[in-house]
Order: sequence, then C-alpha cells, then structure tokens
Amino acid sequence: MAGIREPFLPVPGFAALGMNVGIKDERLDFGVVHATQPCTAAGVFTRNNFPGAPVLVGREHLADGQLQTVVVNSKNANVATGLGGLEDSRRICRAIGDALGVAPVLVLPSSTGVIGVRLPVERILAACAGVPGRLHDGREGWEGFARAIMTTDTRPKAISLRVGDATLTGVAKGAGMIEPNMATMLCYLFTDAAVPASALDRALRHAVDRSFNRISIDTDTSTSDTVVVLANGLSGPVPEADFAAALAEACLYLAKEIARDGEGATKLIELCVSGASGQEAALALAKSVINSPLVKTAIYGADPNWGRLVMAVGKVFAHPVPLEALRITFGDPAAGLAISADSQPPETLGRIADYLKGSEVLLHLSVGDGPGTETVWGCDLTEGYVRENAYYTT
Amino acid sequence: MAGIREPFLPVPGFAALGMNVGIKDERLDFGVVHATQPCTAAGVFTRNNFPGAPVLVGREHLADGQLQTVVVNSKNANVATGLGGLEDSRRICRAIGDALGVAPVLVLPSSTGVIGVRLPVERILAACAGVPGRLHDGREGWEGFARAIMTTDTRPKAISLRVGDATLTGVAKGAGMIEPNMATMLCYLFTDAAVPASALDRALRHAVDRSFNRISIDTDTSTSDTVVVLANGLSGPVPEADFAAALAEACLYLAKEIARDGEGATKLIELCVSGASGQEAALALAKSVINSPLVKTAIYGADPNWGRLVMAVGKVFAHPVPLEALRITFGDPAAGLAISADSQPPETLGRIADYLKGSEVLLHLSVGDGPGTETVWGCDLTEGYVRENAYYTT
Repeated sequence: MAGIREPFLPVPGFAALGMNVGIKDERLDFGVVHATQPCTAAGVFTRNNFPGAPVLVGREHLADGQLQTVVVNSKNANVATGLGGLEDSRRICRAIGDALGVAPVLVLPSSTGVIGVRLPVERILAACAGVPGRLHDGREGWEGFARAIMTTDTRPKAISLRVGDATLTGVAKGAGMIEPNMATMLCYLFTDAAVPASALDRALRHAVDRSFNRISIDTDTSTSDTVVVLANGLSGPVPEADFAAALAEACLYLAKEIARDGEGATKLIELCVSGASGQEAALALAKSVINSPLVKTAIYGADPNWGRLVMAVGKVFAHPVPLEALRITFGDPAAGLAISADSQPPETLGRIADYLKGSEVLLHLSVGDGPGTETVWGCDLTEGYVRENAYYTT
Repeated sequence: MAGIREPFLPVPGFAALGMNVGIKDERLDFGVVHATQPCTAAGVFTRNNFPGAPVLVGREHLADGQLQTVVVNSKNANVATGLGGLEDSRRICRAIGDALGVAPVLVLPSSTGVIGVRLPVERILAACAGVPGRLHDGREGWEGFARAIMTTDTRPKAISLRVGDATLTGVAKGAGMIEPNMATMLCYLFTDAAVPASALDRALRHAVDRSFNRISIDTDTSTSDTVVVLANGLSGPVPEADFAAALAEACLYLAKEIARDGEGATKLIELCVSGASGQEAALALAKSVINSPLVKTAIYGADPNWGRLVMAVGKVFAHPVPLEALRITFGDPAAGLAISADSQPPETLGRIADYLKGSEVLLHLSVGDGPGTETVWGCDLTEGYVRENAYYTT
C-alpha cells in the first residue's frame, strides 16, 4: 500500500471547504468537512492539563462514537477562555448543525492559534449559514480545508490511500508547540469504508502511538491537539487489519510531514534507537537525543559533532548505556558512516558532514544487545524557529 | 552579607594563574589554583552517565576530603576518550604534582570543551614545569584563572565574600549544555576559613541544590559538571552557619551569572512558583516553564504571550493546576503587572511588553494554596544560541 502522491483524493459521501471569516486577517481561517450521513468516529486529544474549549466539547461529542461534521478555525485556539469560551464552542456547533441539518452532538469543533483570547464568535456564527452552499465534494474543497486550518505551517499536509474499494484521506496541520510525548496537533481522517467505532478507536490509538506520539519539534505540548477519524461506510466493510495498516501509514506520513515542516526547520530527522534494555529505555534515549537543542543545532550546522549525541544519551540518568556499546550510524547503514567512542576516522567525519547537508537525516543509535527499539522523528533548530516565535502573537 | 562587586579578592595561602598552552588557538586555555598547604575539600559532579575522565579522577581524589591544587584546561573536555583519556588526566595530575611538590591525589583535574577528542596532553605536561614560576597570589592570578577556564562564556564569572576574618572567592564558567536538574558546570571556591571536610560537604550540597541545580540554559546536561570548594584554614574557624550562608550566596551569585551569560542570551529570567501542592510539584512546574522554548522565545521578543505560560504549566501532566487558580505576575509584585485566565486588561499587557524589554525578567506563578515554592533561573532563547551551536566544533 502506498500513499497517493497527488493528495486530496475526494472521499465519496464527504464534502469540504476552506474560507475566510476574518478572525485575524485575510487568509483562510475557517474549514468544514461534512458527511452526507452519520459516521462511526474515534479521536484522541491533548494530554495538556489545560485543554482548549473545543477539546472539551469534542470529547463529549465523540463519547458515543459518532460524528458527521468537523468545523475548525485557525488563528485563535479558544484556550484559557473560561466558560465564555466553552459556550462559544457550543454555539458554533449549534450554528453549523442548524445550517447543515445535523444534531450539534454530531459536530466536532476545533480551534488552533493564539491562546487566551476570546474568539470573534459572531463572525463565525454569521459564516455558518453560508456553509451548505460552499461545500464542495471535489479536490478543491479538500485543499481549501487543508489550507484553512494552517497556522505557522508553510504548506498544507494531506495524504490519500486506497483500502480495498474504499478511500482514506487525511489532512493535518502543526508546526510548533509539538512534543511526541502524547496526542498531537490537528489531524482529520475520512474514509468511506465501513468500520465499527470500536475498531476505529483501536486502529487510531495504535496508529497515533507510532506516529504523532513519536514526533517532536520543540518539546512543548499544545493545548489543542486532536486527531479524529470519521468512517461513513458507503463503500462497505474492509478487513480490519487492512484498514488499520492504511490508517497507520496515513498517520505516519502526516506526522513526518509535520516534523519536516517544524517552525524554522530545514531538515527532517529520523532517529532509531536499538538494543536498549526495553521499550521504555529505547523511547527515553530516543527522546533525549531528538529533543536536545545541542544535537538539533549541530545537525542544522551539518556539524558531525557526535560528542553531543553521547551527551544526550548520557543524560538519561535512569537508563545508563555502556559507552563502549554505543555505536552511531548516519544514513543508510550500507554507506558505512558509523562511529563509536573507540573509532572516529577523520574521513568518516568528513563524509558525515557532507551527509548532514541533506534535507533528511537518518540516525541509528545501537546501545547494546537488548530487545528495545524505538523510532522517533524531529527537526533541526534554526534561527528561523527563534524569529518565528519571538514575534508571533500580539 | 554582600558579594564584593570588585571580585577576584585574593585568598591568603592560595595563588593562581591562567596561561595559553596551545590546545586550540592563542587564547588562555590552562589554569591552576594552588594552596600552600593541604585543604579540606568537598565537591559535586555531573550526573550524566558518561562523565568525563577528569570527573572520574576528581571523584577518586576527593574521596578523603582533601585537596591542594586545581588544574583546569578549556577547549577540550576529555570526555568519551576511553582509557587513554583517563591516563591523560592522571598524567596531568602527576606532572603538576611533581612541579609543585604535591601528591597527585591532592590534585583535582578538570577539562571543558569539545567532547570525544583526545587532549594534546604533551603540551599540557610540558607547561606544568613552568607553573611554579607563574603562580601569582594577587588579583591578576585569579583573573587569569577565571579567563582560562572560559569556553563560550562572554565574560569571566567570580565573586568574593568576607566570612568573619576569612575570605571566600569563587570562580565559575558555563554558558551552554546546562540544565538545572543536577550538578552543574565548572565552579571553584576557595577560602582561608578553617572548615572540617564534613561541614564543607554539607554546606556545598545545600548551596548547589539551591543555585546551580536551579538554573537552566538549554536542558542539556554536561558531561563535565564540577563544583569544588577548598578551605586552607589559615584564618581559623568561623561559625558553620555563617560559612554555609556565604557559600550559598556565592553559589547563587555565580549560578545566576551563568544563566545571564547563557549562549546567545539577552535576558536573565528568574521564575518563582508558589502555592503548589508540594516541593516536587513546584519544581516540576517551574522547570517546565523555564525550559519551554516557546516561553523563552516570547520573552526574547518581549511578547506578553501569557498563553504560552499557561501551556507550559499545563503540560506537567503529573501535577495539574486549576486554571482558575493560576495567577501570573511580571516584575515586582508592587508594580501590579498581574494577569489570570479571567483578566488580562490590554493596558496591563502593554505594560508587560514594556517590562519584558529589560535585561532581567522576574516571573511569579501562583498556582494555588499549597506549601510548595521553588525559584529557578534561566535565560531567553535567541538566534545567537542557534548560531553559536550550529557551528561550534570541528
């Protein structure tokens, strides 16, 4: 199974739109995806202790495993906005439900952007009435939706896959405030396969754990993270394992797209730790390295400063690694760019410096003979990240 | 008791030097402090699982609570250099001991700089013979030492205090690879007070825990962190509590100097969390905020983006805080720059933006009615940090 490189493949029974309602400026800031009938649905949300109002409402609406409509605004997260913010989110669900003839409990709301500012809710409510006339079941509807949910993303992120006779299309956004330790940013997946809500939930949790929960841009955990999948069943059932594999592939592709498009990033980093004493150790070691600012800046500078990888492995106090067991490989193992504490041939360091100039960096850390293996994704740390975040709100 | 603003006050019975031995370039890279007689001594070292060779040797030499000489090189950390690196460190202790007529076990070695490269040890050994003729018991000896141990520091860091009739002078270095979670960078403190080794050890551990263990520049934990205090006893005993207070003041001053001089930093940040359910909760919340790249970049940009503080408090999953209990104060509490989720008057946000333009930022987060209070120090995240670390080794 392979992702369709031309994304935004329409899914039968769904229509979408992206439009501007004037939340901050003239850019697209409001998106809707609507199904012609109720769908089975599953979702996972941020573990941040201050979830946004739409996350609270979304959890309620997903409780029975059914959704029909997704409504998203960007430029404002509706987080830390109190009871007023919660009511704003409920009013948006009612307005879009009224416009589309759908019970509000079948609407999943999301908001993403600045924290702590009330939504200009009247503008959104006014826009809802016009939604039915603007929904589009073709490619441009989906592309508009993907663009409308962007904040600091530099490009829309989407993938389409075939599962038997069914289509699976996923759309995501996210570039900052992203840490692999739990749920994620915003990601919506839609399929016309028939998948019971319980199977959808299992497949989604598994897929998210191996994708969005394994990426990091800056160690900061958003208050809005949401991944939701809707299945309208129009194309009939598919084998559960096939669907789960497609969902995992779509989530992994979109998670890597988010890491690659990290704020200011110039490189996607894929890091595999193997030979750890167990899964927990492998993940702790992998996170320590992928989140180390000194590793991230060295990779940005194409500096083969392997000592920083040693430092980042060594600062995981709970899981000591014998230095003589540590072997670091850059790129394809067959290329032979491997070093260890005992051996760093200067010509190898020179070839690693050249390798690091590319836009994708693969790193493999072998830390012993244990069974623990984990793969995580991240990006480099650049002046662009600082500039983007020093002057973002206000 | 106040630190003497004119630092580098000589301590009777000690002499010091800083010189160049050509480890990397023409800058000072080699420093020695030597006492005329054996001193009681105490030290704490990095918790990184890959401590440098000098840390291993230093722990051995400190085991009996006695030292007489400290020998430090910069530009090379002698870390991840195997048995050869360990032998290099021992040879330096022997050479300096021979030159000064001191048993090698009374010499504490330190190295700081790039990881994973063998020391040019012959140059250091050759320099040791000339050390006795260059040691200076006046101010310039101490200032030379403070400059010789610098790596990416932009200025030497030192403090002198009086304790009764005795003097306490401390010298430190450190600007990157610094996280508050354990020991620290390099810091040496010298006094002519008479303090038993056990009291010295107690006082040092207490002082370090409230100072170096509460600073963060970049969450990365050095493999070379070392804090050592030597007391030669020449001025006789002082009350233990007075000495402990002076040592704590010196460590806190030097820790703040390190945070203020963080790589690329333009601002020192002091953050106090109060009202937490306990000490552990207070420290976890404080660290989450002081280490958040999004908080650090907002402060760099003088952006009153308080939502990022909310996010960073909320991502401490183990210690949830009720949002309605969170109160954030910028600067002196009397200035009235306080906001909460319920109230962010625009004129207050404007005044906070002005306040954030200064070079010291005080933040107070009140999170409830509990007894837990912690204060930590850090710095902003700037393009300068990225530039400095993208192109540092090789």
